[in-house]
Amino acid sequence: MVEGDGGLGRWQVRTDLALEAHEEAVRRRSVAGVDVEERRHGGVSVQSVTIRDEEAARRIGKPPGHYVTLHAPGLRRRSRRHGREVVALLAEELGRVLDLDESTSVLLVGLGNWNATPDALGPRVIERVLVTRHLGEAVPPELRGQLRPVAAVAPGVLGLTGMETGEIVRGIVREVRPERVVCIDSLAAQDPDRLCTTIQVADSGIRPGSGVGNHRAALTRETLGVPTIAVGVPTVVHAIAIVESSLRTVTESFRGRGRWGDLVGAFGDDEGDRAFLRRILSPKLGELMVTPKEIDLLVREVAWVVGGALNAVLHPGIDLSDFGEYAQ
Amino acid sequence: MVEGDGGLGRWQVRTDLALEAHEEAVRRRSVAGVDVEERRHGGVSVQSVTIRDEEAARRIGKPPGHYVTLHAPGLRRRSRRHGREVVALLAEELGRVLDLDESTSVLLVGLGNWNATPDALGPRVIERVLVTRHLGEAVPPELRGQLRPVAAVAPGVLGLTGMETGEIVRGIVREVRPERVVCIDSLAAQDPDRLCTTIQVADSGIRPGSGVGNHRAALTRETLGVPTIAVGVPTVVHAIAIVESSLRTVTESFRGRGRWGDLVGAFGDDEGDRAFLRRILSPKLGELMVTPKEIDLLVREVAWVVGGALNAVLHPGIDLSDFGEYAQ
Amino acid sequence: MVEGDGGLGRWQVRTDLALEAHEEAVRRRSVAGVDVEERRHGGVSVQSVTIRDEEAARRIGKPPGHYVTLHAPGLRRRSRRHGREVVALLAEELGRVLDLDESTSVLLVGLGNWNATPDALGPRVIERVLVTRHLGEAVPPELRGQLRPVAAVAPGVLGLTGMETGEIVRGIVREVRPERVVCIDSLAAQDPDRLCTTIQVADSGIRPGSGVGNHRAALTRETLGVPTIAVGVPTVVHAIAIVESSLRTVTESFRGRGRWGDLVGAFGDDEGDRAFLRRILSPKLGELMVTPKEIDLLVREVAWVVGGALNAVLHPGIDLSDFGEYAQ
Amino acid sequence: MVEGDGGLGRWQVRTDLALEAHEEAVRRRSVAGVDVEERRHGGVSVQSVTIRDEEAARRIGKPPGHYVTLHAPGLRRRSRRHGREVVALLAEELGRVLDLDESTSVLLVGLGNWNATPDALGPRVIERVLVTRHLGEAVPPELRGQLRPVAAVAPGVLGLTGMETGEIVRGIVREVRPERVVCIDSLAAQDPDRLCTTIQVADSGIRPGSGVGNHRAALTRETLGVPTIAVGVPTVVHAIAIVESSLRTVTESFRGRGRWGDLVGAFGDDEGDRAFLRRILSPKLGELMVTPKEIDLLVREVAWVVGGALNAVLHPGIDLSDFGEYAQ
Repeated sequence: MVEGDGGLGRWQVRTDLALEAHEEAVRRRSVAGVDVEERRHGGVSVQSVTIRDEEAARRIGKPPGHYVTLHAPGLRRRSRRHGREVVALLAEELGRVLDLDESTSVLLVGLGNWNATPDALGPRVIERVLVTRHLGEAVPPELRGQLRPVAAVAPGVLGLTGMETGEIVRGIVREVRPERVVCIDSLAAQDPDRLCTTIQVADSGIRPGSGVGNHRAALTRETLGVPTIAVGVPTVVHAIAIVESSLRTVTESFRGRGRWGDLVGAFGDDEGDRAFLRRILSPKLGELMVTPKEIDLLVREVAWVVGGALNAVLHPGIDLSDFGEYAQ
Repeated sequence: MVEGDGGLGRWQVRTDLALEAHEEAVRRRSVAGVDVEERRHGGVSVQSVTIRDEEAARRIGKPPGHYVTLHAPGLRRRSRRHGREVVALLAEELGRVLDLDESTSVLLVGLGNWNATPDALGPRVIERVLVTRHLGEAVPPELRGQLRPVAAVAPGVLGLTGMETGEIVRGIVREVRPERVVCIDSLAAQDPDRLCTTIQVADSGIRPGSGVGNHRAALTRETLGVPTIAVGVPTVVHAIAIVESSLRTVTESFRGRGRWGDLVGAFGDDEGDRAFLRRILSPKLGELMVTPKEIDLLVREVAWVVGGALNAVLHPGIDLSDFGEYAQ
Repeated sequence: MVEGDGGLGRWQVRTDLALEAHEEAVRRRSVAGVDVEERRHGGVSVQSVTIRDEEAARRIGKPPGHYVTLHAPGLRRRSRRHGREVVALLAEELGRVLDLDESTSVLLVGLGNWNATPDALGPRVIERVLVTRHLGEAVPPELRGQLRPVAAVAPGVLGLTGMETGEIVRGIVREVRPERVVCIDSLAAQDPDRLCTTIQVADSGIRPGSGVGNHRAALTRETLGVPTIAVGVPTVVHAIAIVESSLRTVTESFRGRGRWGDLVGAFGDDEGDRAFLRRILSPKLGELMVTPKEIDLLVREVAWVVGGALNAVLHPGIDLSDFGEYAQ
Repeated sequence: MVEGDGGLGRWQVRTDLALEAHEEAVRRRSVAGVDVEERRHGGVSVQSVTIRDEEAARRIGKPPGHYVTLHAPGLRRRSRRHGREVVALLAEELGRVLDLDESTSVLLVGLGNWNATPDALGPRVIERVLVTRHLGEAVPPELRGQLRPVAAVAPGVLGLTGMETGEIVRGIVREVRPERVVCIDSLAAQDPDRLCTTIQVADSGIRPGSGVGNHRAALTRETLGVPTIAVGVPTVVHAIAIVESSLRTVTESFRGRGRWGDLVGAFGDDEGDRAFLRRILSPKLGELMVTPKEIDLLVREVAWVVGGALNAVLHPGIDLSDFGEYAQ
C-alpha cells in the first residue's frame, strides 16, 4: 500500500483486495479477462476472482492469478461459534490452493511489524501455529507422528532489521528448502466494512507495495522458487480512500437536495476531478491510516481464525475441537 | 473521544485539544471568557489557553481550567537533540502546574490500552518513569535520598479489567494518598499534523469521553480529592474529522475553479449542511480512527519525551544528561 | 519466598506449599492439628491439607485453613487432552471453595511481575480470563446474560509501581466491592518435580513472603473484608532448597559406600548441621532461583489450565469445549 | 549448555566462560597452550584468555581463539554512571576484535528466546541497536551520512520457528553479505556472582551447546564465511553446577569441624566421587537453571550496556552522551 511517495499516483493499489480492485474496474467498465464466482455459506460469502492475463492484470492493478475472498462480517462480533465456521471454510480454501500430500513441508511467513497493531497480524498468526519441523518439545505428545514438517518465522520489517523482508525470506527458503511458502500479511482495503472481516487467499504471492508494511521485494513463486501462497486480511484503509468514498457518499446523498445538491452531485465521476482531489489531499493524508477503534481485539480474533485454519489444513491429525487450543 | 454512540452529536469533543476547540470556536465567532497566549522556543510553540468560566467552557466544549499546549513538529523526525529541548520545555511547564516542594508525593497514572498502539502512550510512559515510593531495588544507588516518593500505575481499560479506570484510580488514591496525581493519556485531535507533535498539559484533569480510550468516570481534583494534572498527546484523528477537514480543503481548493467550483465552495459554512454530513457519515465512520503509518515509532518517541520530562521535574536530583537513560 | 533478608532463618517458608511444609513437619515428627486426605483421578493426585489451629499453623509455618493441592506431572508434557482433565478437576475444587450463586461478583487478581517469566503466571492468567463486569465489547454475543460479574487486574509488583500489591488491591476492592477475591500467584516449592505440575487452592489467602514476588501486605479475608481464595502454582525452587535436598540425596546415595559414605550419610539429620549449612550458603545463594529451562512454555501451559478452570467455574454457561478458546 | 541429554557427561561445557573453564583447568593442573592476561579499570577487571591450539582447546573445552572477559560487579547495582564506564570499556574491546573501517557492513544477531527472561538478552540488545543498512525512517536526521550499514535480527529459537538458528542466520548472511557478524547470546556460568556482571567477547563465534538456548549449528567464520564475533553474558548457572560448587563450599567449611568434618572435607577432589555425584543428580537437576530473582532488571541493564557499546563502536558519529538514548 502507501509507499514512500505517499501513494501519489498509485490509485490502482490503493486497495490490496483483488475483489475491490475488480469492483473498481467494473465501475470503470473494464473487466475482460477476469472471472468472478460467488457462493455463500451461512453468514460468509466466498468470492473467487481469477485474473487470466497480463492485460487484465494491468487493468485491475493486480498480478494474474487466483484470488479467493472470504467475507465474514460476523467476525466483528468476535463470536467463537461463528469463528469456527470461518476456520473450516478458510481451511477448505487453503487446502485447495496448497495442494499438499502427507509429507509436504511448509514454511509460514508472518509479515509485518509486531510493534504496530494493524500491521501485527502476520506475527500474531505465527505465534498461534504449530511448528513441527524440529519435532521439538513444543509438540504435544498425542500428536507425534501425525505432523508434517512446518516451520514459521516473522521476519520483521525494514525499520526493525535494516533488511528487506524479501532478502530474509529468500535466504531462509534457500537454506530450509520448504515445498510451500505461505505468507500472512495485513492488507489495505477501500471499504472500512472489510477491515478484519475479509480474508484473501492468493496463489500469486506478495508484490511490492502490498500490505500495511512496505515490502519492496516480491515473495512469489518466481522469486522463492516454490509455490507461494498469500493470506491477507485488510486491517487498514488509507485516509485518502476514506475521504474519496465519503465524498462519493456525500455527493450521492446531496443529489436532489435542491439546486446546490444537484451540482455537488455531479462531482467525482470525472477523472480530472479525482486526480485533482488526490493531488490536494496527499500531502496531508498520504501517510495516514484508518483503523477501527478496537483494532487490537479484531486483529487477535482474525489471527485466531487464520492460525486455526492453517493448523487444521497443515495438521489434519488435529481434531477440529482442538483448533482454538492449538491456535494459541 | 468517540463514545459508544459513535460520537454522533458530540461534535464539540471531536477534538481533545482545548486549542483546537478554541480555534473552532473562533471560526464560529465565540471566544468571550477565554484567554490565549503564545510564545516560541526554537522550533517549539507554547500556547496557553485559559477557560475562565462555565459559560466559556460550554461554548468551547472543554471544562474551565488552564491548558498549556506545546507544539513541536520536529518530534516527527525523532531527533533526540530536538527531543531534549522539548523535554526541558515540558518539564518547565509541568513544574509550574505541579507546584511541588521537595517531598510532595506524586502518583502517575498511565491511561489507555497497552495492546493498542495509539492508545498505549500512557502505559509506555509509565514504563519509563522512575518509581521511588518504595525505595526499592529499582533505584540506582547514586540517586538514593534525592528522590521524592513517586508511584506509578497503568490501570488498563474497561475491556481488559471489567472496571472503570476511575474506580481503580480512585481506590488506589484513597489507599496511597498521593499529594498530586498526573494522568498521561492519548488524545484525539482534528488536525493530523498535531499527531505525536503536540503535548497538552491541563490542570482540569480527565473528563468523560476524553482520550482515545473510553473513560466514563472523571479523574479530577473533585473526584480524587487532590490536584490532578492531565498530560495528553494526540495520537489519533476521528475519521469523520478527517473527512470534514478534507472536505473543507477540497471546497476551498475548488473555489474559483469555474462555476461548479464556486458552488462547491459554498459548502461547509452552513451548520445544517454539517449536521447532515455527520448524520450520513457516522454510521460508516463513527468508530474509525486515523493514525500515521509509523505510529509505533512516534508513540515510543513521545513517550520518551513525556517520561523524560516527568523524571526531570519529579527528580531534579537527576542530571539532565541522564534523561534518556532513566526514561527507558 | 526469599525476602530482602535473603531468606536467612526463614526455613519454614522456604516452600509455599502447605503439603511440602507438612511433609517437612512429618520428617520432624510434628503433625497434631493437621488433617491430610488424598484421592487420585487418572494421572492426577488431589491432596487436601487442613491446618486446624494456630498451634499447628506455627509448627507447619502456614496459616490455618484448607489447602487443596492438585499434582499433575502430565502438565510437563503439555498435552491438551490431559490439560482438559486438570481444568475440570481444578474447576471442581474451585467451585467447592468459592461457593458461588449465579450472581456472585468476583475480582480476579493476578499477582506477580509480567516481566519475569517465572513470576508472570498471575498476569498471564488474567490475560486468559473472561471479564464481564462491564458487559463490554469483549464478550462474545452468544454468552450475553449467562455471565456473572467478573473483574480482573494484574497490579504488578513493588518495583514496577512503587506501591504494595496489598495497597492497590485493597483500594480496588473498596471501590468495586466484589463478593469474592481470587488471587493467582507463582509459588516457590522445595521439590523441582512440583514446578508447573502442582496447583494449590487455599482459602487462607496470600500472606507476607509468599509467592515468587515479595508481598509484604496480606491479601486475606481479614484485610480485604471478603472471602479471599489463593490459587498458587510453584514455578521456582530456592537455590538453597535445591542444594539442601541434593545434599540429602547425595548423602543417602553415599550411605553404605564404605566407611566414608557411612559418615557422610550421617549428615543432614542434625538441626545444627542444617543451620550451619544455611548460614554458609545464604550469602551466595540467598537471592537465587531455580527454574526449568522451558519455564516460559510451562508457565503458558499452566496459565491456560488455571484460566480455563476459572472461566469454567465462573461462567458455567460456557460449554467445556470452549475452554481453550476463551482461555486465550 | 545443557543439551537434550540433560548435560550428563558434558562437564566441560557446564560453563560457557573460557575464563571459568580455564580456572577449572588450573584446578586440575592443565594450562599449557593458554595465555591469560588481566588488567583493571576502576571497578572493572578485563581478562583476556587466548587458547592457542586444539590440544589446549580440548583440555579446556573451548575452541581455540581470543576471549576477552569484562567483569563488572557494579552492574548488579544498575548504576548508569558505572554502566557508562562499562559501555566505554566494552566498546574499546569490541573495536579491537571487530577491526572496522568506516564502511564495513555488520549484521547483528540476537540469539535466544524472547519469551524466556534469562534467554532474552540477545533479542533485547537487538531492540536497542541502531539499524541503518536501509537508511530508513528509524534514523534520526542529524546522524544521516555518519552511519555504517548495520542490520540486525533476532532469529528466535528452534521451539519457536522449527528451524535451527544456524540455518536462518546462514541463509540471511548469504543474501545480505555483511562483512562482519556479531552474535549476542545468553550464557551459562558456574559462579553465580558472574550472572549479568560478566561480558565475554570471543572471536571464535558460537558453538553447539553454547548459550542458554540450544544451538546445534555453529555460527563461526567457518560456517558463515565472514569474521564472526560472539558477545555473551552469563544469565544462568546450571543447578548441578550450583550444587557442586556449594558442596565444595560446604566441605571446605566443614574442614576441621571435628572428626566428621575432616572426612567430609575429603569429598569432591576425587573424580570418581564427582562423576558419581553428577550421575545421581542429573535426573532431577539436569534441566534446571539458576538465576537471580531480579533477572528481568539485570538482563535489561546489561542489554542497555551491550547495546550502547555496539552503537558506540558501530556508529562513532554518535556522541557518547547519546548512548543511553539510542540504546533504547
